[in-house]
Amino acid sequence: MLKNIDPALNADVLHALRSMGHGDTLVVSDTNFPSASIARHTSVGKTLHIDNVSAARAVKAILSVMPLDTPLQSSAGRMELMGAPHEIPAVQQEVQAEIDRVNGTVVPMYGIERFAFYEEAKRAYCVVTTGETRFYGCFLFTKGVVPPNEPDNQ
Amino acid sequence: MLKNIDPALNADVLHALRSMGHGDTLVVSDTNFPSASIARHTSVGKTLHIDNVSAARAVKAILSVMPLDTPLQSSAGRMELMGAPHEIPAVQQEVQAEIDRVNGTVVPMYGIERFAFYEEAKRAYCVVTTGETRFYGCFLFTKGVVPPNEPDNQ
Repeated sequence: MLKNIDPALNADVLHALRSMGHGDTLVVSDTNFPSASIARHTSVGKTLHIDNVSAARAVKAILSVMPLDTPLQSSAGRMELMGAPHEIPAVQQEVQAEIDRVNGTVVPMYGIERFAFYEEAKRAYCVVTTGETRFYGCFLFTKGVVPPNEPDNQ
Repeated sequence: MLKNIDPALNADVLHALRSMGHGDTLVVSDTNFPSASIARHTSVGKTLHIDNVSAARAVKAILSVMPLDTPLQSSAGRMELMGAPHEIPAVQQEVQAEIDRVNGTVVPMYGIERFAFYEEAKRAYCVVTTGETRFYGCFLFTKGVVPPNEPDNQ
């Protein structure tokens, strides 16, 4: 355990988040996503885990330390439902709420078609799988920057 | 870079700090300390780095996330000067100030004789070497706990 760091962020996840730079992407996946096979293509090369919690809970932990990229429109994507690309299921609504909370404003996630998502995911820095059992609990986040001269950036 | 995390904590150091549990110890060493040879005996097995900064700056970064153990008397040790075990050189005074700041009270570090320090260091979880060039910039910290139900521990 560490002070001021969400305990859901284990050592391997923290290592990956700290290693990522501006523009690198991270996948948060549900339990049906082919995490292991896709993660082999990523920079980390193996699956990372925030087990036994919902996608929204995992996203909350990740976004507590990882800055999202700007423009905000392109920094958070969701896997589109096949045949219903504009439908936002509850699992995605919950994650949207976490993103909005950290942004302090409402910026809807962009949609990514399922197979396009797989290809994008292979180019990610890492895949963090979760305990999310609901379908389409798959998201892609682009890392932003922490500006100099902030209180915690001495 | 991550939000709310000192940028001096690189990915490998963060990984080690998060992996440590209650009672595990961490060495902060100066540039003359035999870090590489001693680190081979530690749990991590290789030297970790917070390069190019003073011991106090590195300790500030580490203690921004790592809780110290209680009782406070035994959670921070310093390498004693050979022939002057009670003398506190400037490099140790600066680190003491960082410890006191995070503790919110003054609790002097305990002294460890040089060769005893080497033996203690081999039993540590890890060795974090710094850019500290002054002699006796070597310290041993014991990790404490983060209690449940704190704001960042949901």
